[in-house]
Amino acid sequence: MATVNAYAAQSEKSPLAPYDIERRALRPDDVAIDIDYCGVCHTDIHFAENDWGMTEFPVVPGHEIIGRVTAVGEKVSAHKVGDLVGVGCMVDSCRGCPACESGLEQMCKEGFVATYNGEDRHDHSITFGGYSDHIVVSDRFVVKVPAKLDPASASPLLCAGITTYSPLKHYGVKPGDKVGVIGMGGLGHMGVKFAKALGAEVTIFTRSESKVAEAKKQGADHVIVSTDDKQMEAAAETFNFLLDTVPVQHDLNPYINCLTFDGVHIIVGLLDPVEPALQAGGLVMRRRVLAGSLIGGMPETQEVLDFCAEHDITCDVEMIDIQDINTAYQRMKKGDVKYRFVIDMKSLRA
Amino acid sequence: MATVNAYAAQSEKSPLAPYDIERRALRPDDVAIDIDYCGVCHTDIHFAENDWGMTEFPVVPGHEIIGRVTAVGEKVSAHKVGDLVGVGCMVDSCRGCPACESGLEQMCKEGFVATYNGEDRHDHSITFGGYSDHIVVSDRFVVKVPAKLDPASASPLLCAGITTYSPLKHYGVKPGDKVGVIGMGGLGHMGVKFAKALGAEVTIFTRSESKVAEAKKQGADHVIVSTDDKQMEAAAETFNFLLDTVPVQHDLNPYINCLTFDGVHIIVGLLDPVEPALQAGGLVMRRRVLAGSLIGGMPETQEVLDFCAEHDITCDVEMIDIQDINTAYQRMKKGDVKYRFVIDMKSLRA
Repeated sequence: MATVNAYAAQSEKSPLAPYDIERRALRPDDVAIDIDYCGVCHTDIHFAENDWGMTEFPVVPGHEIIGRVTAVGEKVSAHKVGDLVGVGCMVDSCRGCPACESGLEQMCKEGFVATYNGEDRHDHSITFGGYSDHIVVSDRFVVKVPAKLDPASASPLLCAGITTYSPLKHYGVKPGDKVGVIGMGGLGHMGVKFAKALGAEVTIFTRSESKVAEAKKQGADHVIVSTDDKQMEAAAETFNFLLDTVPVQHDLNPYINCLTFDGVHIIVGLLDPVEPALQAGGLVMRRRVLAGSLIGGMPETQEVLDFCAEHDITCDVEMIDIQDINTAYQRMKKGDVKYRFVIDMKSLRA
Repeated sequence: MATVNAYAAQSEKSPLAPYDIERRALRPDDVAIDIDYCGVCHTDIHFAENDWGMTEFPVVPGHEIIGRVTAVGEKVSAHKVGDLVGVGCMVDSCRGCPACESGLEQMCKEGFVATYNGEDRHDHSITFGGYSDHIVVSDRFVVKVPAKLDPASASPLLCAGITTYSPLKHYGVKPGDKVGVIGMGGLGHMGVKFAKALGAEVTIFTRSESKVAEAKKQGADHVIVSTDDKQMEAAAETFNFLLDTVPVQHDLNPYINCLTFDGVHIIVGLLDPVEPALQAGGLVMRRRVLAGSLIGGMPETQEVLDFCAEHDITCDVEMIDIQDINTAYQRMKKGDVKYRFVIDMKSLRA
């Protein structure tokens, strides 16, 4: 066991603040990591503020972790001391169900163990995340960071990256396909980069005329202002795929109307009831598909890092110190970040 | 032009009654057919009673047509006088769009021409359906009826059959898959037969305990009473596919909860808003799919007839005379038919 520095919320009303936590002694398959960078995901805010009523306090958020291996358990061969590695949203799963055996640990029948606010399968402790200077994780859930990647801007690939990459790969996006990306936040801007790299013609849907220039700068071939009915109607039946990153309730029907027959609308950001009501006819009459997708499995998490190294893709990030985390949360709630905050964990050691 | 006997509704308030209609002189690609049998689809009622506000009166319903070829246009080579043939829900389409070129005429970019209440692409007349003793249809929309099939019970294959066969094939249902069929009407009972013939383990979901014995008789391996929460919970995460034939609003969420990860819920009966609201989390957390499907294209309509001949599959039908059609509609509204009424069109000639 080791006592390490972290930032935790002690209750849904209290800001994040310094807090000492214990990291376990290495199990045979464990990797000990000194954390260099941790991305800030909107999910972190939901847990810190207990928006979903399932937070175990104190909570140490953070699941976009990049760091250096400092020690490994006796059975670990894939990672060695000094390696640059990443840890994403998962730190364990049952490893024996059909999903785990297919490398889809995020679909584990028993539920994956989340990097924070999860329950360890062995000692039943609650897991603490990456707003910390050190973490211990089973080797299966540790990925290698290619040398070509900038470590700081690579950290959001472990959640925002894999979340958008996985469905585009799963549904086979290919050159010539028309892909629409709905929403231009941390997830959306990564979706644009991946869809472009896969050869698709990419359109960003944004609610605001004022974001059109920025959307073009992100590499989108086209921009549609979704609040303009004329633009939406002109786009009817033209998209093969829509990647919907919007995390709040919104009307899916005008978007689904933009799909060709056999088109696929992929939800990655929404967990709420679909209101206004989904029109079943919009699916039936054009044989369309409404699909959900959740992060990605461990082999694909490695794949997305390798893909980014190969295609020179990084996340657009704004670096912060851990002491600025509460301000960063406030700015994120206003959408004031391009496009992901990343904590430089040196600030925690200072 | 030829004047032929038919049954039509003159308004949404009037019952179906005898009515003379004109059938066009043969175009070069036309096939003239003396109708022997016509299945009765619930859609016929919706149009006769103008439930969707889009009926052009007088309307002659009927799109599950079996008959004998009496004449062919000069360019027709696929069909000849005396052949037993079928006509389903479509009688024309643009033939040049990507959907038509893929044999998915039901997805035609310009909209397919429906067998009744459609607008002819050439003379702009409104089409009349199969409650008639004769019809003229372009050869592309005429299928061959294999000699092994009983003609009367084959007629519902042209709508109820293809509607349930097409999505099971499209999504690749195979031996070992677990398929649930929701609803046990004309569509549902065909879905059970197809899923069994494709090698799946099949469960019928029914709202009523009283239908369990009948469901087993239909060949289902298992029956789940959907109003029994315990049975529904026990079925959580066990189905690869759900074929949802229910034509009225119903809560999809308890069914979607029965899908494995990557499971697919296929809607073929519902055109309305999905209420109660669909839970997006139910799709996202298990990478599930909600899909729509609409009849099938012409090559697949031929395929379903051939498949039924090969696998000894027929629709369970109750024969009626055309003079009984209004009573049949009343019985259908109460769900009192096992499982499809078929009109013996001899009765119209009598």
